[in-house]
Amino acid sequence: MSTNLSAYLQELRSVIDGALERSLPEGAAPTLVVDAMRHGLMGGGKRLRPCLTLMTAEAVAPLVGLTTPRARLMALPGACAVEMIHCYSLVHDDLPAMDNDTLRRGKPTTHVVFGDGLAILAGDGLLTEAFGLIAASPSPVAAAGAPEAPAERRLRVISVLSAAAGAVGMVGGQAVDLRAAGRVPSHPKEPMGERELRDMHARKTGALIRAAAISGAMIVGVEDSIVAAVDYYAQEVGLAFQIIDDVLDVEGSADDLGKTAGKDAAAGKPTYPALHGIDESRRIAVDCVARAKATLDAAGLGGRLTELADWSLTRTK
Amino acid sequence: MSTNLSAYLQELRSVIDGALERSLPEGAAPTLVVDAMRHGLMGGGKRLRPCLTLMTAEAVAPLVGLTTPRARLMALPGACAVEMIHCYSLVHDDLPAMDNDTLRRGKPTTHVVFGDGLAILAGDGLLTEAFGLIAASPSPVAAAGAPEAPAERRLRVISVLSAAAGAVGMVGGQAVDLRAAGRVPSHPKEPMGERELRDMHARKTGALIRAAAISGAMIVGVEDSIVAAVDYYAQEVGLAFQIIDDVLDVEGSADDLGKTAGKDAAAGKPTYPALHGIDESRRIAVDCVARAKATLDAAGLGGRLTELADWSLTRTK
Repeated sequence: MSTNLSAYLQELRSVIDGALERSLPEGAAPTLVVDAMRHGLMGGGKRLRPCLTLMTAEAVAPLVGLTTPRARLMALPGACAVEMIHCYSLVHDDLPAMDNDTLRRGKPTTHVVFGDGLAILAGDGLLTEAFGLIAASPSPVAAAGAPEAPAERRLRVISVLSAAAGAVGMVGGQAVDLRAAGRVPSHPKEPMGERELRDMHARKTGALIRAAAISGAMIVGVEDSIVAAVDYYAQEVGLAFQIIDDVLDVEGSADDLGKTAGKDAAAGKPTYPALHGIDESRRIAVDCVARAKATLDAAGLGGRLTELADWSLTRTK
Repeated sequence: MSTNLSAYLQELRSVIDGALERSLPEGAAPTLVVDAMRHGLMGGGKRLRPCLTLMTAEAVAPLVGLTTPRARLMALPGACAVEMIHCYSLVHDDLPAMDNDTLRRGKPTTHVVFGDGLAILAGDGLLTEAFGLIAASPSPVAAAGAPEAPAERRLRVISVLSAAAGAVGMVGGQAVDLRAAGRVPSHPKEPMGERELRDMHARKTGALIRAAAISGAMIVGVEDSIVAAVDYYAQEVGLAFQIIDDVLDVEGSADDLGKTAGKDAAAGKPTYPALHGIDESRRIAVDCVARAKATLDAAGLGGRLTELADWSLTRTK
C-alpha cells in the first residue's frame, strides 16, 4: 500500500472507531448485552467497508459543491451502520450452528466468550442499532452541529442496506453457503459450481461492499448515474478482494490471518483457487480491478478510490 | 370479546396477513431462506401488535382530518414491520441456545424444521426486511396509489422500532432473561425480584407493544401529546396482557396454548402468579386497564382501543 493511502485509511479508521464507540446504547441497555455487542464490534477489524462509505462520499462531494470534511460527517452514521451490519454477520456466521469459528482476528469469537445465546442476541442488537443509527436525529455518532442528510436520502440508504443485508443479499448468501456445507437438514446438500459460487459471494460479501460504496455517494446527493458508477466499481473491487482473500487463505496459516486457515477448503466449500488455481485466480482479480478503474475514469472520479483498487491486488492480508 | 371487536380484529388480521404475504423478497432471494422466513412469519399468530398499529392510526386519524381507510393504508408497512420484528424474536428465542422451544402455536418451531443455522438466518432476514419495508418506496405491501407518509415520519418510526427491538428493548430483555435462566456462561445467574421482572418484561415484551402503538399514531402525523397518550395506553395494556399471559400459562395446558405450558415456572423464571398469586395478579392487570382507559378518555380517543383494553382481561388465550 502506498504511504499516502495507508495514512488516509488509518485516518478514516480512527474516525470510524471513535464514532462506533459512541454508537452503542451505553447506560440505557443491560450491561451484559452491550459488552457482547462491543466484543463483536470493536474487535480491531480493518473497517474497509465503512472506509469505502466515507471514501465515496468524499470522492463525489465536489460534484455537488460539498467540502470533503462535510461529506465525511454526513456519511459517518451510514458508515457506522455498514460496519455494525458487517460485524453482526461475523458474530452470527461464527456460531457453532453456522461456520463454527472460535477465532476471529486472533481473538476468541463472541459466542466463545459469552455463550451462543448472548452471541445471537449481540448480533441481533448490532443489526437493529445499525438501522436506528441512520434514522436517529441528531445522530449519536455525529458531533454537535454536524451536517445531516435530508430524510429522503437517509431512507434510501436504509433501503439499500436492508436489501444488501437481507434475504436477497447477505442472509441469502449465508443460507446458500450453509446448505453447500450440508448444514441445512431440511434441504439436501448441493454441490456448488462456479456460477453458484459467484452468486453466493455476490450475496454474502459483494452486496454489503456495494451497499457501503453506494451509501456514501447517495447520502451526499449525487445523480443516479454517478451512484451506478460507484456501484460497478465496488462490485468489481469487492470481487477482487474476495478472490485475493481466498488466495491468501490457501497460502496463509492460522497465525498470519488470525483465523483458522484453509478451513473453507476443509469444509468442502469451493473457492477461486480450488476452481482455477492460484495464478488464474489472481489474473481474474486483476481484470476486475482494471474494469473498476476504467469506470471511475469515465465518471470523472479516481484518486483514493483508484489507489484502493490497486491495493486490493497487492495486499498481503 | 364483543362480536364487534372480534370482527374488527379479524378484518385487520386479514389485511395484515395479505400484506405480510407480499412482504418477502420472493424470487429475488434463495428459496430456502424465504421458506424458513415464511415459516416463522406466517405461523397463524393473533397479529395483535400490527393490529394495534392499525388501530391507533385509525383512532387518531380524525384528529388530522384523515379518513380511517387512508390512515390504515398509510400505517400498513409499519404494521407489517412490527409483526416481522415480533416473529424474528420468536424464531430466535425458540432456539436451543435460548429458550429451546420446539412448539409454537401448535407447530414445530423454525429450527426444528430447518435446523439452527437456517433458523438464525431466517430471524436475521425478518429483522432486516422489517426496516427495509418502512424505507421502501413504493412499498411492496401497499396497493398501487396507496398514501405514503412523508420521509421524516417514516424515519421516526424506524427510530422508534429500532430502539424497541434493540439492546435497550427486546434484545436487552431477552439477554436479562437468559442470564436469569443461567444460560450466559460469562455472567453468573442472578435471582430476579419483582423490580427486575418488571424491567425484563418492559424490555422484552412491553417495548415492542408500545412501539407498535406509537408507530400507528406517529405515521399519521398527530402531535406529540397524543403520541404520548397512545404510548401510555400501550404500556398499561401491554403489561395487562403479559400478566394475563402468565396467569393463563399457569392455568393452561400444552394443548390449550399451543406451547409448552408451565415452562417458565420449570425454568425458574419468576412470573406474576409466582410472585403474587393468581388473584392478586389479575387485580394488578385490572388496575393497568383502568389507567389505560382513563388516558384514552383524557386524549379524546377511545372506541376500539377501549374495547381492546377490556378484552385483555377477559380473554381466555
